[in-house]
Amino acid sequence: MSVRIGIMGYGNLGRGIECAIRNNPDLELACVFSRRDPANVRILTPGVPVYSADTAVEHKAEIDVLVLCGGSATDLPRQTPEFARHFNVVDSFDTHARIPEHFVAVDAAAREGGHVAVISCGWDPGMFSLARLYAGAILPDGKDYTFWGKGVSQGHSDAIRRIEGVVDARQYTIPVEAALEAVRSSTAPELSAREKHLRECFVVAEDGADLERIEREIVTMPNYFADYDTTVHFITREELCRDHAGIPHGGFVIRTGKTGWNSEHSHIVEYSLKLDSNPEFTASVIASVARAAKRMADRGETGCRTMFDIPPAMLSPLSPEELRKCLL
Amino acid sequence: MSVRIGIMGYGNLGRGIECAIRNNPDLELACVFSRRDPANVRILTPGVPVYSADTAVEHKAEIDVLVLCGGSATDLPRQTPEFARHFNVVDSFDTHARIPEHFVAVDAAAREGGHVAVISCGWDPGMFSLARLYAGAILPDGKDYTFWGKGVSQGHSDAIRRIEGVVDARQYTIPVEAALEAVRSSTAPELSAREKHLRECFVVAEDGADLERIEREIVTMPNYFADYDTTVHFITREELCRDHAGIPHGGFVIRTGKTGWNSEHSHIVEYSLKLDSNPEFTASVIASVARAAKRMADRGETGCRTMFDIPPAMLSPLSPEELRKCLL
Repeated sequence: MSVRIGIMGYGNLGRGIECAIRNNPDLELACVFSRRDPANVRILTPGVPVYSADTAVEHKAEIDVLVLCGGSATDLPRQTPEFARHFNVVDSFDTHARIPEHFVAVDAAAREGGHVAVISCGWDPGMFSLARLYAGAILPDGKDYTFWGKGVSQGHSDAIRRIEGVVDARQYTIPVEAALEAVRSSTAPELSAREKHLRECFVVAEDGADLERIEREIVTMPNYFADYDTTVHFITREELCRDHAGIPHGGFVIRTGKTGWNSEHSHIVEYSLKLDSNPEFTASVIASVARAAKRMADRGETGCRTMFDIPPAMLSPLSPEELRKCLL
Repeated sequence: MSVRIGIMGYGNLGRGIECAIRNNPDLELACVFSRRDPANVRILTPGVPVYSADTAVEHKAEIDVLVLCGGSATDLPRQTPEFARHFNVVDSFDTHARIPEHFVAVDAAAREGGHVAVISCGWDPGMFSLARLYAGAILPDGKDYTFWGKGVSQGHSDAIRRIEGVVDARQYTIPVEAALEAVRSSTAPELSAREKHLRECFVVAEDGADLERIEREIVTMPNYFADYDTTVHFITREELCRDHAGIPHGGFVIRTGKTGWNSEHSHIVEYSLKLDSNPEFTASVIASVARAAKRMADRGETGCRTMFDIPPAMLSPLSPEELRKCLL
């Protein structure tokens, strides 16, 4: 019995879920929901229906787990509780500061509906969170560091696009190699934002725009750029399409800690990702969580979960016996 | 209420558990059991009793979780089922090929006794197994690689010590840098044993021993060395004590995999450890598992588990709310 998955929202993440399902023989794409006119949405999988997002609840019986692919700013805070009343759901809510309130809202709705909801799945939050949790539980006398990149930050790219005279932009977050080395040297350094990451911007400006002003507005922009060493390159629209079309990302979670009666031994635990496609990797994590959500629901569990609550074995298509034999 | 831990066996691992307990305010050392005469066992923690291993069951009421620190060859296959009848237990059974049968024996005993037993905890099996499971569940279209070292292999050091004319020896397993790079380059290479690891041996020989013969016996030893590029250095007993007293270890678990409708995107997931003290890190993992074992027992669970079955949140002293707020 394969797990029948519905996709709510068919952007980069939704397409990533569709691709991930293709890589997992025990998962099956049941249908795709879109806010666009279904007649105009072309998906990759032959024979799978596209429905209007408004009609989702009518298709309840076709779906074991509904994956919510909306944005964290406005879609998910509303959608996840709403759909958790009717479906087992998985989302990738990634506004770290608002996770506690999102959890509470989703938990109430999921319990009311008798469903399982797993929020904040992906790699950060998600796999990076797990790396922090495991390493912190093992090495309580220690310190952890998260570095992001090299990768495209959608939020920073959008911020540049809002500047007058900018046509398009791509911002890369880049970890500072010297900071990574300082952390790995086990001296538990204190590092400022500027010391940890560089920001590199590729900007397409309107013809005749004041490039000096645009650059100044970027590098002095509070919160986004002012606290970082930022480089700005003006390029053509063609160069942007040719050289910066991908959505790579990744990063490092490093914890250094001490053990021994007198803290005499040092240890370094490092988890890193190097991703060609941020949305496809995020989607691949979500696909494994969808499998686990179905299993939890089958056990009669209800309520909200995060990856912290899921026994790792539940994410795998292998049986517990196979896992012990082949991977332990 | 702290978790009261008993330690069965007071060697490097047992002492590591004692140190790990000191780093975890919610864990408490209840007592230590030894096969030696308790009068001759000096432990680090003041005021904690040392008992004879034979009397363990008499001290049941003092202990929430008994950590078994014996060896995998002969101690644990007997001890873990035996003690799982009377205690919640954690072991670090690391004979990978025999884990399935160990699991079955321990599971039956733990169910019979109404206790929780967690086997094969540490870093391999343990954290490396988790790294393989998570990465494999996320990237089913991929391949994983485990590299060990640089670190001391007890088994290989012992094998050298059994050679005639050898007084003492220390063997380091070293991952081949070029192999690591080949794996990270995402071409999913097939690598032989020789291509993945080097073996470096530091040997103290008897006065007048035939060094050429010893070296030949080492590098041609089947299973242990014949399939590897092995270097042998003869050193003095003083040099061995001065330069090779530590028990460092570590390694890498790397999975490379593809996503996308036509497998067009590559990803690299890497987990690595660099450990000053192999037994103390292993003990630190076990300490976090002991906390989880108590929590599972408090929920009324019984039977055998591995780290694959433990929701990550259970390993942490932080509450689910704190974890979501601070680490997710």
